[in-house]
Amino acid sequence: MIKTQQLVSLFMETREHTERCCKPLEIEDYVVQPTPDVSPPKWHLGHTTWFFEEFILKPHKADYALFDEDFAFVFNSYYETVGRRVVRSDRGNLSRPGVTKVYDYRHYVTNEIKELLSAGISSEIEELLWLGIQHEKQHQELLMTDIKYILGNNPLLPTYDSSFNENPIQNVDFKWVSMKEGIYDIGHNDPESFCFDNELGRHKVYLHKYEISNTLVTNGEYLEFLKAGGYSDFNFWHADGWTWITQQKISKPLYWHEIDTMWYQYTFQGLHVLDLDAPVSHISYYEAFAYAQWKECRLPTEFEWEAAHSYIDWGSRWEWTESAYLPYPGYSKPPGAIGEYNGKFMVNQKTLRGSSVVSPSHHIRHTYRNFFQPKLRWQFTGIRLVK
Amino acid sequence: MIKTQQLVSLFMETREHTERCCKPLEIEDYVVQPTPDVSPPKWHLGHTTWFFEEFILKPHKADYALFDEDFAFVFNSYYETVGRRVVRSDRGNLSRPGVTKVYDYRHYVTNEIKELLSAGISSEIEELLWLGIQHEKQHQELLMTDIKYILGNNPLLPTYDSSFNENPIQNVDFKWVSMKEGIYDIGHNDPESFCFDNELGRHKVYLHKYEISNTLVTNGEYLEFLKAGGYSDFNFWHADGWTWITQQKISKPLYWHEIDTMWYQYTFQGLHVLDLDAPVSHISYYEAFAYAQWKECRLPTEFEWEAAHSYIDWGSRWEWTESAYLPYPGYSKPPGAIGEYNGKFMVNQKTLRGSSVVSPSHHIRHTYRNFFQPKLRWQFTGIRLVK
Amino acid sequence: MIKTQQLVSLFMETREHTERCCKPLEIEDYVVQPTPDVSPPKWHLGHTTWFFEEFILKPHKADYALFDEDFAFVFNSYYETVGRRVVRSDRGNLSRPGVTKVYDYRHYVTNEIKELLSAGISSEIEELLWLGIQHEKQHQELLMTDIKYILGNNPLLPTYDSSFNENPIQNVDFKWVSMKEGIYDIGHNDPESFCFDNELGRHKVYLHKYEISNTLVTNGEYLEFLKAGGYSDFNFWHADGWTWITQQKISKPLYWHEIDTMWYQYTFQGLHVLDLDAPVSHISYYEAFAYAQWKECRLPTEFEWEAAHSYIDWGSRWEWTESAYLPYPGYSKPPGAIGEYNGKFMVNQKTLRGSSVVSPSHHIRHTYRNFFQPKLRWQFTGIRLVK
Amino acid sequence: MIKTQQLVSLFMETREHTERCCKPLEIEDYVVQPTPDVSPPKWHLGHTTWFFEEFILKPHKADYALFDEDFAFVFNSYYETVGRRVVRSDRGNLSRPGVTKVYDYRHYVTNEIKELLSAGISSEIEELLWLGIQHEKQHQELLMTDIKYILGNNPLLPTYDSSFNENPIQNVDFKWVSMKEGIYDIGHNDPESFCFDNELGRHKVYLHKYEISNTLVTNGEYLEFLKAGGYSDFNFWHADGWTWITQQKISKPLYWHEIDTMWYQYTFQGLHVLDLDAPVSHISYYEAFAYAQWKECRLPTEFEWEAAHSYIDWGSRWEWTESAYLPYPGYSKPPGAIGEYNGKFMVNQKTLRGSSVVSPSHHIRHTYRNFFQPKLRWQFTGIRLVK
Repeated sequence: MIKTQQLVSLFMETREHTERCCKPLEIEDYVVQPTPDVSPPKWHLGHTTWFFEEFILKPHKADYALFDEDFAFVFNSYYETVGRRVVRSDRGNLSRPGVTKVYDYRHYVTNEIKELLSAGISSEIEELLWLGIQHEKQHQELLMTDIKYILGNNPLLPTYDSSFNENPIQNVDFKWVSMKEGIYDIGHNDPESFCFDNELGRHKVYLHKYEISNTLVTNGEYLEFLKAGGYSDFNFWHADGWTWITQQKISKPLYWHEIDTMWYQYTFQGLHVLDLDAPVSHISYYEAFAYAQWKECRLPTEFEWEAAHSYIDWGSRWEWTESAYLPYPGYSKPPGAIGEYNGKFMVNQKTLRGSSVVSPSHHIRHTYRNFFQPKLRWQFTGIRLVK
Repeated sequence: MIKTQQLVSLFMETREHTERCCKPLEIEDYVVQPTPDVSPPKWHLGHTTWFFEEFILKPHKADYALFDEDFAFVFNSYYETVGRRVVRSDRGNLSRPGVTKVYDYRHYVTNEIKELLSAGISSEIEELLWLGIQHEKQHQELLMTDIKYILGNNPLLPTYDSSFNENPIQNVDFKWVSMKEGIYDIGHNDPESFCFDNELGRHKVYLHKYEISNTLVTNGEYLEFLKAGGYSDFNFWHADGWTWITQQKISKPLYWHEIDTMWYQYTFQGLHVLDLDAPVSHISYYEAFAYAQWKECRLPTEFEWEAAHSYIDWGSRWEWTESAYLPYPGYSKPPGAIGEYNGKFMVNQKTLRGSSVVSPSHHIRHTYRNFFQPKLRWQFTGIRLVK
Repeated sequence: MIKTQQLVSLFMETREHTERCCKPLEIEDYVVQPTPDVSPPKWHLGHTTWFFEEFILKPHKADYALFDEDFAFVFNSYYETVGRRVVRSDRGNLSRPGVTKVYDYRHYVTNEIKELLSAGISSEIEELLWLGIQHEKQHQELLMTDIKYILGNNPLLPTYDSSFNENPIQNVDFKWVSMKEGIYDIGHNDPESFCFDNELGRHKVYLHKYEISNTLVTNGEYLEFLKAGGYSDFNFWHADGWTWITQQKISKPLYWHEIDTMWYQYTFQGLHVLDLDAPVSHISYYEAFAYAQWKECRLPTEFEWEAAHSYIDWGSRWEWTESAYLPYPGYSKPPGAIGEYNGKFMVNQKTLRGSSVVSPSHHIRHTYRNFFQPKLRWQFTGIRLVK
Repeated sequence: MIKTQQLVSLFMETREHTERCCKPLEIEDYVVQPTPDVSPPKWHLGHTTWFFEEFILKPHKADYALFDEDFAFVFNSYYETVGRRVVRSDRGNLSRPGVTKVYDYRHYVTNEIKELLSAGISSEIEELLWLGIQHEKQHQELLMTDIKYILGNNPLLPTYDSSFNENPIQNVDFKWVSMKEGIYDIGHNDPESFCFDNELGRHKVYLHKYEISNTLVTNGEYLEFLKAGGYSDFNFWHADGWTWITQQKISKPLYWHEIDTMWYQYTFQGLHVLDLDAPVSHISYYEAFAYAQWKECRLPTEFEWEAAHSYIDWGSRWEWTESAYLPYPGYSKPPGAIGEYNGKFMVNQKTLRGSSVVSPSHHIRHTYRNFFQPKLRWQFTGIRLVK
């Protein structure tokens, strides 16, 4: 019973936190989609709500009345199992349903879930609720990065929140941490606590000895790479990375601006002089790799990272690893629509470890596996070195 | 003095009418751009305002203070002379400036213009004011067709205004009007009244005899073409048109929906059963041409249209002509940014004649030359036949 | 009977001339297609042969045995009526049938036609034969320009024929020819001689007075435009033209090379210093228009050109006109596959008048209407001015 | 001294074998490039020759005279270190240098190398020679698959060699091989024999127990998957794979043809009825993965494959593994142009293990790592299952 109440609290807290993220927005900010990887904030609000409606209320609440029949079409993200959906790149073309209607939808579903839970929670619903909550927390992170992209690509460069510091200074001094050769256990190991299917099953890997930096690469260090001509020497780059920076004319991290020989960075606080001590952010895997090459180091594998996680300072940047995002030995896809959650993305992506300044609380574990295509930069991504 | 007051009235009426067009919109509807040819309504509001600021207030009002320095960048459409601008396809990515700010901008500039005019109007300012007014009226038409596209491509198919009838029944009975062979005068001929540079200079053309329909092709007639397999027989189509319908999977006019063997049309009044007597609308030049081929007729040239304009019933659809949009003999491009208004588009486009249900009053003449690329359909375009 | 023999002679001469064009080629040159607008020489050899087989031998020769059943698929160009075909941009992917086999095909069909004709020629066959001959002559011109493109885009810049002078000096001195206002007759007018359907029917146009240059713009004159910054001032360009030169990074005519501040031109004779007195060539309509704007002149319409044809020096360059390629009044498409010859291309193209250094004999008339998209440059296109 | 002679023999045998592969070709077949992943045979002939010239003759043979200065530009593949090069997708646009000239180039360089070697071989040259030989052997494999693609995509489906059987029947009966959990050594381990840098350094991996099939999946088994609707059920596919088959309209392996309900396969012997017992071939990683999902199995990792290599029947198909192509721990990129050989491709690709019916002799080891993008199918790729 206490557990139920805690779960309800966590649910309510999660629902409220999503809306708190949107507080500083104008109505117009909820609607746009400047690039297909970014979703409009109102889509996140609706989609996380639809997830609870589709996977909990529809199958498990007797006589549940859909808020609006068309919303399954509008707010489904990628679940082929569930039916047709708006093409991802068209999300920003939808002015309706409007923001007010989407909030109504949220509150309707939140209340319906509360009502459902008040009657007691079966273990099946509990599991789905955990998934729904973690799913919404994942979207909170995306919501924040999408908001940053929407505002940061606007020529007026509006401030999101002048008190939001996304550039924490690292508290520890740089040090190489030496790790021993041997067998390490990898993967989630606590049956009491939530994890995603991609963190299972627990298994052994053999690691050769390595040294891993306890701190992240800073803006200042990255600026040296840039000034040393890092973006114009193919030797540091993968062939695909070199093609990408050449075709896209990439010569600096996302959100960096050079104005009259001074370097600035757009953050949630607006445009400010680049903070040289803060960890570098918004770089692609290609850039992370090239920087490491230039430094005559390399990126860690996700196993090296997990094995060393308690000796390093992490939590402000998602860290690119050298590992491709692949199933663990013994991975098995859950049945039905939930099975589409992770497995079908296990190709052409890189694993990231850690968490970021916009990762919600109660969401991150050292076994958590984030993943993105190597060219993507709109997340708070960073660099940790190994040698 | 009376003329000045009339001009001020026309200016004010024009400014107000634009805002009246937007009355039925939600804030969210002002922002989106579902296809690059469509601009967000708030962009139209801002751009028509910027035109008055840039070409009248900046050069002609002493000590004029710009409302916002960044707006020239945000609201310039295509004037290379005037400086950098947001790429057209990015207009829908801009959540800021917000709608309220854009209305503030409108009212600021409207008042500044009023103030300027109160001091008397030089002939140079009068000419620019006419141009600004006609420019805004052109955008009123685009604004309406863009709003229709924004709402009509939303899966919820929201109603714009349940009293707006865009499908007037034609009042006259079909008849072939016989026109005689001979020399006709073409082009604007009234020095007292406004026209665009592309309607000048008045000149002679030689026309062979022809018969032109006094009415427009109806939905019912076009449906026959569709049912007769018109979209699947290459014989009726230009090679470019055939490629277009094949690649884009076009098989019916824009806004037509077939639901359980019944035909519907989305209009400003929402989704309703197709009105068979109304003039067909939202078809490309390729479709207009193919229909005419199927009927063993052809489209008029713009000269045939102009010569016959007083014998035919026109005004609800822009009518595709067979003529390419080219300069008249003696056309000369005005100097400066104003010279970019028409001349640089005189290639790869077709001329349309007439006007449409969303054409504003005081805007249309029988010498008016509209022009679009042959594949475009989001305007209220129609078909008139000649044989 | 004499006429028959003349026709057979013309047929044989045409077939031989096509093969003579290919004499200087290596086998490898017959195969490649560096851009979709260019066809491999062996495709031209096969396609012109297929035309005779498909439209004359198959329907009109008793017991005709196809050379190879697959060749209809391989060598059909664009006739939807006739069946499936290799996608145009894939022509350069076909190594088989080989060159020897294609020549065998040619000789087989040539002989079969000769045999057919020896039995006497009906007026229907005569008409088709004329069409087949003129069709092959059109392809001779394309064959030459395609060969030039294939060799001229090879980094080794091989010579085609060191005696082929494609840059004749103009024999007359520059002069403006004054043409009177009035009614002119346009279109083909000789029932005895061949013309294409697009040159019919003869009709009247009204022309206002104009002055037309008797000579073509030279390389030297065009170089002045280039050096004056013509390619970097948007004022001279159509919007579409400006987009084209910007995106394609166009800054000079095709086949011009600047090496150490000297200007060279690739011709059939190889790479040589640019001949300043020769007429400029290989420019797009956009460039022709921009040059005329810079000169404060304009291009002629096709009617102005035809009316003045006997007062001007023409024949070495196809000349861009301001006219869009449209049907004449009274144009009617022939029935069947032959009807696909011209009519379906009458949109999105510009008319060119004149002829070029690679136009075959017995092929060109002053009523001949050539047509291309405004961006194309691989033909021997040139500029004549009007004011 | 004996070793030198053996090396010279291997060199000569390699050079001759490449030319033997081209024996059945017509001149035209050497030139075309039907898709950017395929190179024209004459390019392979030239490129493998250029490799010896660039990396051995130029730096190590005194007074070496280049065969042709332009060939470095024409035949460089991707070495940024070495200078400019023809864009990959343009290789099929080059008719010159002709085939005869390319053979002259080959013989010139072969002789120059022989002459160089006759003077004795330093260890540096020996190493480069090994690399050049192995490089040419890699291209022999590509040459064969490119030839198959060139002929197999020609509508005439010509035979390459009627005695070349690419579909060997598997000699052993199907069996699951059980492998024990534990630590395995991975990577090349014989300092005496050649390997590529990507096979180094030897290292340990921990494998959990698994069972691996001793045989490859057959055409007959794959046909069952196809008939069971495998290509139309998204559940078996990665999201990227599903997008790929949907957009490219993929519904069967490359070179399979369904004609009147019978299944055929194009092989080097021409079009023949599908051999149901032969191992399936020419499938993408996406298809291999989907098949394994349907079978409720999975693909091996490259480590599982290497650990089990002596218990399984391999050698006719390159086998897709689940592993991404990544550097081994301790991998270090060689300096200079040679360093561009492997390292810069270590992203966005899958590792393949085994070898194929067109792999040359003396080329393959069980530690050999081949790699391709997951969508590619023109290699002789196959499927081995693990559970």
